[in-house]
Amino acid sequence: MNDQHRYCVIMCGGIGSRFWPYSRTALPKQFIDFMGTGRSLLQMSYDRVLALVPKENVLVMTNAMYVDLVREQLPDIAPEQILAEPARRNTAPCIAWAAWRIGAIDPQASMIVTPSDHLITGERLFVENVRRGFDFVEQNEALLTLGITPTRPETGYGYIQVGDEVAPGLNKVKTFTEKPDLELAKVFVDSGEFFWNAGIFMWSVSSIKNAFRLYAPEISDKFDAASDVMNTPAEREFIEREFPACVSISIDYAVMEKARNVYVETVKFAWSDLGTWGSLYDNSPKNAETNVTQNCNVLSYNSRGNIFAVRGEKLVVVDGLEGYIVADAGDVLLVCPMSREQSIKQMVNDAKIHFGDKYL
Amino acid sequence: MNDQHRYCVIMCGGIGSRFWPYSRTALPKQFIDFMGTGRSLLQMSYDRVLALVPKENVLVMTNAMYVDLVREQLPDIAPEQILAEPARRNTAPCIAWAAWRIGAIDPQASMIVTPSDHLITGERLFVENVRRGFDFVEQNEALLTLGITPTRPETGYGYIQVGDEVAPGLNKVKTFTEKPDLELAKVFVDSGEFFWNAGIFMWSVSSIKNAFRLYAPEISDKFDAASDVMNTPAEREFIEREFPACVSISIDYAVMEKARNVYVETVKFAWSDLGTWGSLYDNSPKNAETNVTQNCNVLSYNSRGNIFAVRGEKLVVVDGLEGYIVADAGDVLLVCPMSREQSIKQMVNDAKIHFGDKYL
Repeated sequence: MNDQHRYCVIMCGGIGSRFWPYSRTALPKQFIDFMGTGRSLLQMSYDRVLALVPKENVLVMTNAMYVDLVREQLPDIAPEQILAEPARRNTAPCIAWAAWRIGAIDPQASMIVTPSDHLITGERLFVENVRRGFDFVEQNEALLTLGITPTRPETGYGYIQVGDEVAPGLNKVKTFTEKPDLELAKVFVDSGEFFWNAGIFMWSVSSIKNAFRLYAPEISDKFDAASDVMNTPAEREFIEREFPACVSISIDYAVMEKARNVYVETVKFAWSDLGTWGSLYDNSPKNAETNVTQNCNVLSYNSRGNIFAVRGEKLVVVDGLEGYIVADAGDVLLVCPMSREQSIKQMVNDAKIHFGDKYL
Repeated sequence: MNDQHRYCVIMCGGIGSRFWPYSRTALPKQFIDFMGTGRSLLQMSYDRVLALVPKENVLVMTNAMYVDLVREQLPDIAPEQILAEPARRNTAPCIAWAAWRIGAIDPQASMIVTPSDHLITGERLFVENVRRGFDFVEQNEALLTLGITPTRPETGYGYIQVGDEVAPGLNKVKTFTEKPDLELAKVFVDSGEFFWNAGIFMWSVSSIKNAFRLYAPEISDKFDAASDVMNTPAEREFIEREFPACVSISIDYAVMEKARNVYVETVKFAWSDLGTWGSLYDNSPKNAETNVTQNCNVLSYNSRGNIFAVRGEKLVVVDGLEGYIVADAGDVLLVCPMSREQSIKQMVNDAKIHFGDKYL
């Protein structure tokens, strides 16, 4: 099948509060050059899929408040490729909109749906895996998810248990699991049957529309009723009116865990959801003192295992810190042990209680 | 004697590198609202002496680069009251200039010379002590220094040993000492004979001129030769030419340790030279978690005994810090244990080596 029928949907509406204050409501994680490469996570996501689909076939789903940021960071894409959600309604309504929009452009289309705030390294392997996935979903009425080969008993991810193999590297999904405890995670990894759920999905437009009609008709009914306005100037009015009226639900709950034609492609490219400072630390290059400096100027003394996330040209001078997050975002400074990063959410709440929205 | 003949010389040329990065070459310690009172240390020094001398009789000795800062912070004083040193030459040439200038205005004058970057609390006692000092130096050919009653065996200060009492609270100076080690400092304090050397001096203009002529003639010769230009438009040219040619030496070495008519007034007002982060911490009000917050917004968790010195409206969020300095000056952030503050000088050097003057 020709690449012209292949589309990529980049989901880019998250607010990323776990990286506060480095990531802010006004500049969430996906828009930040988190790896210090000169490209934001969104830009890296975009660069990655250009080997797979024509750039005209990339759609970016985002919140209305981030449209200007997306335009700035992805100047190559046309305004109509940015789909601005008037409200946050989780992934199912977002994906439905993308599917019906693409269906209106090209009923034969297939698509990959990917988050914009994850890290993937090993682009060659990624492209190879996704091409195989496209081939599969174009030839089968299949909802395909990518399962990352686990490299450690991670308790922060959901896992996918594989069932029968239907083709090399392609299996039926037996179960989706919640985040396991450490003991269970070890069992999962040792078994060889469990793979990390990366939240990357592939399907043909017709397959996902059919799945919505079967398992989430309250969503598909809205979009089917508006089929004739999709990809026309009238689409905006429909979205402004009906999108906020959609139930807020993830594609996992709405479709993937209910459907019977769900498959997993087991892949080996390196992936991280960069969901925590700890995972960012693990995935970043370290200096001789095992500190991650995120390209900022650092003078460190008696300090190891820290992550310094500081904007701009700022100089950071530290002495006697081990295993800390030092994150500076201009108007907020955070100094916190990496081991206590789960409390950052509480800190954000406390900041809101004491100072209102000023520092969010 | 009438207050009209009394003058105050505020020395305000220091660069305060020990408080880097909060204090910077461009904004040294004396210009900062260090105690969060709304007044800088310089402004507090000025406010303090207004009870003692007419505001027209205040001279501010500073470096040429800080003249605008002085004008901004002390808008009440006239331009001719700010004496801009074209080069840094320690305290002796600075005090000589002040003495010859004042002598040209009023040969009967007496004067107090005070640093601008120390903290004094208990203004009523200060005024009472200084009035007694003025009376003494106006009636005697005396070089008077103020000796602070020590409250702890501080090793960071020089001490003055008192000799014979000549009047209540006024003694001959027996010796000036260097900074003692802890054991010796304890002996000093227990003896009752040793007082902290605050670097605050009082004398009549004629007494200090005579002392310069006896003990530092290489300085007094220059100023005596220029007596007729002092306090005239030609003074500036003389200073530009001759001040940089003066030897760089402190008033202590040049005069006080050599002269025979040196006296000490033992005083009981609370004083700190605020020479270190530790002394700033000791002298500042603390919150319930024993942190000093310098009026900035702080959310602290599991953190005690820290000092947060952060400019502007910035929010500081810390977890798991004990006894640290967290100092943020916009383009530089320092996080360092208070116990290692003596290494800040080295850090400033390292910053200079790596980044030039950018962060000094």
